[in-house]
Amino acid sequence: MNNSAGNFELQGEDALKAVFRNHASGIAILTALDSAGAPIGFTASSVTSLGSNPPLVSINISQGSSSYQHLQIGAKVALHTLDSETFELAKRLAGPREMRFNDNERVGPHGLPIFDECPSILIGEVRQRFEIEANAVLVISVNQAQMNRIPSSPLVYFQRAWHTIGQKLSDNF
Amino acid sequence: MNNSAGNFELQGEDALKAVFRNHASGIAILTALDSAGAPIGFTASSVTSLGSNPPLVSINISQGSSSYQHLQIGAKVALHTLDSETFELAKRLAGPREMRFNDNERVGPHGLPIFDECPSILIGEVRQRFEIEANAVLVISVNQAQMNRIPSSPLVYFQRAWHTIGQKLSDNF
Repeated sequence: MNNSAGNFELQGEDALKAVFRNHASGIAILTALDSAGAPIGFTASSVTSLGSNPPLVSINISQGSSSYQHLQIGAKVALHTLDSETFELAKRLAGPREMRFNDNERVGPHGLPIFDECPSILIGEVRQRFEIEANAVLVISVNQAQMNRIPSSPLVYFQRAWHTIGQKLSDNF
Repeated sequence: MNNSAGNFELQGEDALKAVFRNHASGIAILTALDSAGAPIGFTASSVTSLGSNPPLVSINISQGSSSYQHLQIGAKVALHTLDSETFELAKRLAGPREMRFNDNERVGPHGLPIFDECPSILIGEVRQRFEIEANAVLVISVNQAQMNRIPSSPLVYFQRAWHTIGQKLSDNF
């Protein structure tokens, strides 16, 4: 290896933000029910596969978010994948809370609000909440899934903007 | 809301795999040092921002992976963002372990192996390891970053293949 100092100019929060501006992430919608049984949900860029045996998903969330109190261990959730055809839905679920549900969503398993226009929908429940500082990693146990259609182009978040996907470079290796 | 049964045909691991085939994720390279001080590293699709104050990143990893034993609390790591110009590097760090390092990488902070051809590089350390079943969520504290260049197109993993990014649909909202 070559030994030289490099140029690590950014520190702390500035370092995180600058680097993650260069990192793409997928987008999904999480829905659940609040303690009164009303639908809650949000568009998330932190939905990540965690393990397959048993099947687990992780979602990073702020403990200060209005949804966090409703996502206790055992809470049922629906995760919806998104694509360019569901871009307006993705925007709506990232917008003002009172505009996110309009009675057009379906009542699915466990009474969960379901957006059937999404390419696929996963039903699970909160198995664990790992808390650190003001944040938490929610671990979701996967129960079942509904596959509605082949996605047109998945939504990708990059450089503070939403994109479609581009050229296929290679199959997995 | 409309109440109907839907069509949740897939269960468990099949449900997870089918849904995540429709979900895009960003790609990054993690490097670190093993207990003998030799470079280790891998291409990861689970690198996710966790919080900004203090700045934290999460990475999902199997406890059975050869790297896990070297990523104890306090271990220093370098995270490299990737783009189409560094696609061959991404492939190399996802390939056979004995081919991943070739003495062309630079020795950076804490002796970490650094790939300066990547658009940006973040230096941090393992702060917490949340273990669940055979998996773990590594929480990385962010220390500093080096910004090398504007990425051409970030690498995105989707439907078991690697892609560039496509059209910009909208700025964040």
